[in-house]
Amino acid sequence: MSSFRVAAVVTLRRSIADVQGTTVEQALHIIGFPRIEHVRIGKYIEMNVVAASAEEARAYVEEACRRLLANPVIEDYRVTEVEPVAELQVG
Amino acid sequence: MSSFRVAAVVTLRRSIADVQGTTVEQALHIIGFPRIEHVRIGKYIEMNVVAASAEEARAYVEEACRRLLANPVIEDYRVTEVEPVAELQVG
Repeated sequence: MSSFRVAAVVTLRRSIADVQGTTVEQALHIIGFPRIEHVRIGKYIEMNVVAASAEEARAYVEEACRRLLANPVIEDYRVTEVEPVAELQVG
Repeated sequence: MSSFRVAAVVTLRRSIADVQGTTVEQALHIIGFPRIEHVRIGKYIEMNVVAASAEEARAYVEEACRRLLANPVIEDYRVTEVEPVAELQVG
């Protein structure tokens, strides 16, 4: 078994109004960033996963997203990164 | 000028305790995901940026992170994605 650093992103579905994103967009315009539009805000979740392979680590986190990290009624999720963690050699 | 879809991630600095991440980790263990550890939670921000180039779009969002999206005392930020947005041809 190896250790992987996995990142997942949970975002509101396109059809759901993103009130937080709209608020941030207005604030950006006020402080001088008029060229930023269509802001949407989500959650970024990073974790270590012990698994036999990168594919298994990805599937494990996708299952965790379905079960806990995302609300599938209003949110989408995707795994954005699966990187092996360098392990210390002992002995 | 072109339009780019840019994504940025804002995370707590390593030295700051991530209480939300710890809580999620405990919940994952309880519902049957013991192989997930070191959970850290951040913000994911996606936006459209009008800029002359991908490099300019990235720099513009990095400036927005410094000015508004991240709290540099306790948070790190990085731009994770800069993709040109397909534009409709008119005429």
